[in-house]
Amino acid sequence: MNTAQPLRLLARRATPTQCLTQSSRAWRRALATPAARPTITHQKTGSQGPTAMVFMNMGGPATTDEVSGFLSRLFADADLIPLGPLQNYLGPLISRRRTPKIMKQYADIGGGSPIRKWSEYQAAEMCKILDVERPESAPHLPYVAFRYANPLTEEMYKRLLEDGFGKGKGGRAVAFTQYPQYSCSTTGSSINELWKWRQRLEAPSKASTDLTQAPKEDAGSISWSVIDRWPTHPGLVEAFAKNIKTALETYPEAEREKVVLLFSAHSLPMSVVNRGDPYPAEVAATVWAVMQKLGFSNPYRLCWQSQVGPSAWLGAQTSDTVKNFVKKGQKDLVLIPIAFTSDHIETLFEIDQEVIHEANELGAEGRVRRAESLNGSPVFIRALADIAMAHLDSGMATSKQMGLRCPGCKSERCLESKKFFVSQQLETERPAVII
Amino acid sequence: MNTAQPLRLLARRATPTQCLTQSSRAWRRALATPAARPTITHQKTGSQGPTAMVFMNMGGPATTDEVSGFLSRLFADADLIPLGPLQNYLGPLISRRRTPKIMKQYADIGGGSPIRKWSEYQAAEMCKILDVERPESAPHLPYVAFRYANPLTEEMYKRLLEDGFGKGKGGRAVAFTQYPQYSCSTTGSSINELWKWRQRLEAPSKASTDLTQAPKEDAGSISWSVIDRWPTHPGLVEAFAKNIKTALETYPEAEREKVVLLFSAHSLPMSVVNRGDPYPAEVAATVWAVMQKLGFSNPYRLCWQSQVGPSAWLGAQTSDTVKNFVKKGQKDLVLIPIAFTSDHIETLFEIDQEVIHEANELGAEGRVRRAESLNGSPVFIRALADIAMAHLDSGMATSKQMGLRCPGCKSERCLESKKFFVSQQLETERPAVII
Repeated sequence: MNTAQPLRLLARRATPTQCLTQSSRAWRRALATPAARPTITHQKTGSQGPTAMVFMNMGGPATTDEVSGFLSRLFADADLIPLGPLQNYLGPLISRRRTPKIMKQYADIGGGSPIRKWSEYQAAEMCKILDVERPESAPHLPYVAFRYANPLTEEMYKRLLEDGFGKGKGGRAVAFTQYPQYSCSTTGSSINELWKWRQRLEAPSKASTDLTQAPKEDAGSISWSVIDRWPTHPGLVEAFAKNIKTALETYPEAEREKVVLLFSAHSLPMSVVNRGDPYPAEVAATVWAVMQKLGFSNPYRLCWQSQVGPSAWLGAQTSDTVKNFVKKGQKDLVLIPIAFTSDHIETLFEIDQEVIHEANELGAEGRVRRAESLNGSPVFIRALADIAMAHLDSGMATSKQMGLRCPGCKSERCLESKKFFVSQQLETERPAVII
Repeated sequence: MNTAQPLRLLARRATPTQCLTQSSRAWRRALATPAARPTITHQKTGSQGPTAMVFMNMGGPATTDEVSGFLSRLFADADLIPLGPLQNYLGPLISRRRTPKIMKQYADIGGGSPIRKWSEYQAAEMCKILDVERPESAPHLPYVAFRYANPLTEEMYKRLLEDGFGKGKGGRAVAFTQYPQYSCSTTGSSINELWKWRQRLEAPSKASTDLTQAPKEDAGSISWSVIDRWPTHPGLVEAFAKNIKTALETYPEAEREKVVLLFSAHSLPMSVVNRGDPYPAEVAATVWAVMQKLGFSNPYRLCWQSQVGPSAWLGAQTSDTVKNFVKKGQKDLVLIPIAFTSDHIETLFEIDQEVIHEANELGAEGRVRRAESLNGSPVFIRALADIAMAHLDSGMATSKQMGLRCPGCKSERCLESKKFFVSQQLETERPAVII
C-alpha cells in the first residue's frame, strides 16, 4: 500500500474485478473473535483495502461493575462536561457521588448498556454490505471506539496497530461518528480523543505546525478520514419515520393523527450552546426532515432530556413537556429518541422508566409511548453503508463544516485535532481551519 | 357568496373559464390608492373570489415620528416581550427610555423602515400571479397588517369590512405570516391580534366554547385561514441561496470557498425557548435547507442577534460571533438575515452599521459583508405565490402544528385564538388543539 498518497487518490481507483468480498467475510468472522485475528497483510496492488471502519460513540458500561470507570471518564471530559480549572478535582468527586445511583439504573435495565452489542452488530453488518458493493476498498473491517467505556479509543487504536495498520505499514481508516448530529461534546470529544491516541501511539503529526504547506504525512502512519455528521441522510430519516409509524399504529385509528410526536435529544449546557455548538441546529434539521418524510402527519415538538446539575441547559425539558401535555389532557404522546441510534440508559431508563412512569402517575393511562430505537433496523444499517460509500467515494477527509471551530472556542486541543484531520486532505481541497 | 361553507368546500371549485384576472388587476390598482377603493360586490356564482390576502408582519415606523408609538406597542406585547404582571407599567417606561436612541437609528437608515414599502409590493406582486394562475379564487386583494406599526391589524380589519368582507357578507381571507418560521413571539402574536380584532369588529366567535361540535360559523362573518409557517419552501430556499451566491461572488475566486456563512436570526429569551417555542428549530431547518441547496459549499454557523435587556437569551450572539472570528483571523464572513424577508432596522442598522463597523475596527478590512435581503426578489415573490396557491388548494385552515400550544404555555389568549382558527376547518379534518 502506498502510504503517502492523499485520500482523494485513494478514492474509487480499484475496479470491481479486484473484488475481495470473500476474503473480507473471512476477516469479519475473524474480527468477531479478537483472539483469532490474523495479522493484516496489506495488498501491494489491486484493492486499496483493507479499510478500517471505526464506529465512534460515547459507549456505556456493559456491566454494573464498569459504571464507576465509565462515570469517572465521563466527568473527566471537559469537552462533554466543562467544570473549569477544578475539573481534575470536581470530576472524580461528582462521579464517585453519582456511581451508586447510576449503578442502580443500569441494574434496572438488565445489568448494563446494550450499546456495545448494537454498535458491534451495526458495524459488522455495514461492513458486509460495503464488501459486496464497494470491493475496491474491501475488506472493510469493523472496529468500535467508545469514549467512556470499553472498547476505549486507546484499546481500538492498539488493536488497529496489532492488526497491521500504521507504524510504517500505512493503511486507511475511517472514523465514523455514530452521533448523527455534530456536537463538540460528543463527536468533537471522540475526534479529539482519537487524535490524542494517534499522537501517542503513532509518530506525532507534523501537520499541525504549518497548514499552508503540502500535507505532511508521517511515513507509514494510518491515513484517517472522518464521517463527522449525517443528520438528514435519507436512510436515517426513513428509519426514524418507519419506527414512528409503527408506534403510531399502536393507537386506535381514529385517534392516530392527533397523537403528538415528541422528539427528544440529549440537552446541552447553555454555555456550550452559546459558544456556537452546531448540535441544536443539526438536531432540528433531523426533526424537520423526519416530519417532512411523514408529511407533517401529526403535531410535534423537539425537546431536550438528561440535563444534570444546577447550570442552565437548553429546553424545553422532555420530562416537563410530557408532564405539561398530560396535565392539559393530551395523553397520546410518542417519544422519539432522535440523537442516539441505539438504546442506552437515556431511553431504557430515563424515558421508559422515569418519564413514562411519571406520565402514568398523572393519569396518562399507558398512552405515552416510545418509538423503538434504531438498533438493528435494516433500513438504518443500509443507510450507514450508503453514508460510508459516499464518504469513501468523495475522497474528502472531513466535511467543510468540521474545520470551522465554534466562534467561542478556546480549546487548543480542538484546534490541533482539527488541523490534523484536515491535513489528511490534498492541500487544494482542504476546508479552512479557523484558528 | 355562500357564507357558511367550510374552507375545504371553497378550495378549487371554480373553473379557469370563470377567470376574473382583468377585474382583479383593476382591484389591485384601486387598492394601491385606498381613497379610490370601490365597495366589493361578492359574486353570487362563479368565482369564489374575491380573496383577501393579508400579509402579517411586525412592521416598522415609516418615519421617525412613528418610533414612539411603535415602541410603546412593542413593549406592551406580552407575546413578544414578557414583562410579567408589571407589563403595563414597565412597557411604557422602557419604550419611552429607548425612543430617542431608536429614533436616531431610524434616522441613520434614511428616516424610516422600508418594511411597509416592501410588504405592500410583495403582496401586490404575489396577487398579480395568483389572479393569473388561480382564477377560481380571483380577484386576490392584497392587504398588510402590522403588529406594531401602520397599517395596524385594526386598521386592516376595518378596511376589510369597508371593502365588503364580513358583517353578513361573508368572504374569504387568508392570514399569510411573513415570518417564514413560527414563533409565539411573532406569528403567534400577530394571529392573536387578528383574533382579537375579529372578536371586536365582527360577532364574537361561538367556536371557542365547544370544539367537539360542528364548526359554528357566525353567519356572514369572514372565513379565515392561516398560512402559519413555510421555513423550507423550495422557492424561499432558492431565493436565499441566490443572494448568498451573489454575496460570495464579491470575494476573489481563490478565497470564495473559505468564506464563512453566518446565518443570523432574531434571538429569543430563554424563557420563551424553554417554554417550547418552535422557532429555533424551524430557523435551523431553513439554514440546513439553504446549505443543502448550496451543496454545503462553505463552512457556516447559525447565530442570533438583537437581544435586549439583562435576561438570558439564545446564543451564540451574532455580534460576538463576528468579533470572535475576525479576532481569530477569519475575516471573510457573509452575514445572512434568515428569519426576516425584508430589510428592517436589524439589517440596515444593526448588521450594516453596528456589526460590520465593529468588525472593521478589529481589522476586517471590509471583508465582513451581508447578503441582500429578499425584498423585491422575483424568486421570492414567485415562492409566495406558490405557498399561497398550495394553501388555497389544500382547503386547510391551519397547519396541524398550529393547533399545538407550547408545552409550557399558560396563555388563555393563545388557546382561544387557536380554537377560533382551527374551528374554521371542517370538523373531520381539524387538527388537535392542545388545551
